[in-house]
Amino acid sequence: MLYLIGLGLGDAKDITVKGLEIVRRAKHVFLEAYTSILSVPKETLEEFYGRKVVIADRDFVEQSSDDILADAVDNDVAFLVVGDPLGATTHTDLILRAHQTGVQHRLIHNASIINACGACGLQLYNFGEIVSIPFWTDSWKPNSFFDKICANLKSGLHTLCLLDIKVKEQSIDAMIKGKVVYEPPRYMSVNIASKQLLEIIESKATDSYPNELFNEKTVVIALARIGCDDQTIKTCQLKDMLAIEMGAPLHSVIIPGKLHPIEIEMMSIFADNSQTK
Amino acid sequence: MLYLIGLGLGDAKDITVKGLEIVRRAKHVFLEAYTSILSVPKETLEEFYGRKVVIADRDFVEQSSDDILADAVDNDVAFLVVGDPLGATTHTDLILRAHQTGVQHRLIHNASIINACGACGLQLYNFGEIVSIPFWTDSWKPNSFFDKICANLKSGLHTLCLLDIKVKEQSIDAMIKGKVVYEPPRYMSVNIASKQLLEIIESKATDSYPNELFNEKTVVIALARIGCDDQTIKTCQLKDMLAIEMGAPLHSVIIPGKLHPIEIEMMSIFADNSQTK
Repeated sequence: MLYLIGLGLGDAKDITVKGLEIVRRAKHVFLEAYTSILSVPKETLEEFYGRKVVIADRDFVEQSSDDILADAVDNDVAFLVVGDPLGATTHTDLILRAHQTGVQHRLIHNASIINACGACGLQLYNFGEIVSIPFWTDSWKPNSFFDKICANLKSGLHTLCLLDIKVKEQSIDAMIKGKVVYEPPRYMSVNIASKQLLEIIESKATDSYPNELFNEKTVVIALARIGCDDQTIKTCQLKDMLAIEMGAPLHSVIIPGKLHPIEIEMMSIFADNSQTK
Repeated sequence: MLYLIGLGLGDAKDITVKGLEIVRRAKHVFLEAYTSILSVPKETLEEFYGRKVVIADRDFVEQSSDDILADAVDNDVAFLVVGDPLGATTHTDLILRAHQTGVQHRLIHNASIINACGACGLQLYNFGEIVSIPFWTDSWKPNSFFDKICANLKSGLHTLCLLDIKVKEQSIDAMIKGKVVYEPPRYMSVNIASKQLLEIIESKATDSYPNELFNEKTVVIALARIGCDDQTIKTCQLKDMLAIEMGAPLHSVIIPGKLHPIEIEMMSIFADNSQTK
């Protein structure tokens, strides 16, 4: 059996009891390490589980999925995923391959940023479509997420913006020289996210489209390390999110839609704005 | 400290290790029992935790929240919530009161139907606003959720429909006679949900509004007991959801929007349609 086990968002102890029991009896334990990160290193998980954990990056999963699945025919194999195992589209492929090769699989759910983002005080029922904000390059600046945010705002709905993660990306310079060199991991900060959002707002602003819905003065919510002991939540105007300090990754951003009085009250409690005032 | 601890969706072992440690050391353990249910009774939780668990229904929380909070000033108090503690709006009040009275609180997140519904094969990124479908009475038939589903469909987005739960509702007959008698708990089935949806479609259908977006032939997904060992997922046309057998609660319904080929493939794997074909 292939178990896809959610680890939740914080540290080693955010795994469920059910998940932990499977990890402790599984023949092999893999940790997916390219769509999210925990606040603790692999070694802390190994110590807590009492098991060796093999880091499964994108290349590993693509190249070794046949081996992982072959092993899961007669044994329990645990594939650990930060958050919920269905939070990232990238695991769909492993599940499809398991099905094609007749390997049974089971999901052990856990919290993901998709529900834990409610920790900022907004009601989960009032969110619209989730968007992902990718790192821009000099020549590649996709902005379709912006229209989705505006569509949500038009309907009065909040938008959770997931920020890009680049793990084990090949260096283009090295690639040109025929070498395989990996860039250090990069996690988009709320500062970069606001920079990109402001650039889109600037580029779209015309006399006929002043964008009253979403502009530099729109109040946004910056989230960092949700579910961790040191989670940080701050509200500010979009332009001020350029310079706020949120600390270590992972960061996310929420663009609130129409706010209910209770949500405003909850936001004022949950957001710690001491450094931004 | 007041801990609001998510229990996840299945049985006693879906609590996180972190949550379990708090439950085992807390002075008092309350179980919220009016917005969702686990597949196991209170006694199973008590045995697993090694602790007495007090059922906290709506009346109890409203009447005893001052006592709960007073206790949490100097002690750890665990307030258990099925799913994620932020999945239901009803706990907002307890958090606000905790804040007003200076009682520290902390959330221990877990899976909720909001992310675990991805188990049907649809991508969580492609969902729009969540809707709740309430039980209708002869004289009260709200249908605002229908317009929200249509708005999602228009944008190509999936809709998660949460189905009503009535726990410890007073009997109106008894109330008229001046007595307090509680109705047995009711959990909306996918059959009732489809009946109400079909009635709205029927009532809205006109020559000028044939509702091509959402009609009796629209393919829908019925979910039951997601996250439990016996979870059941079936796809069928809305009119056929009237008669499918999904077993014990809790049920939910998903109205898929525009489907990606991968989602169609995943749906065909995850949905067990053996009884509906």
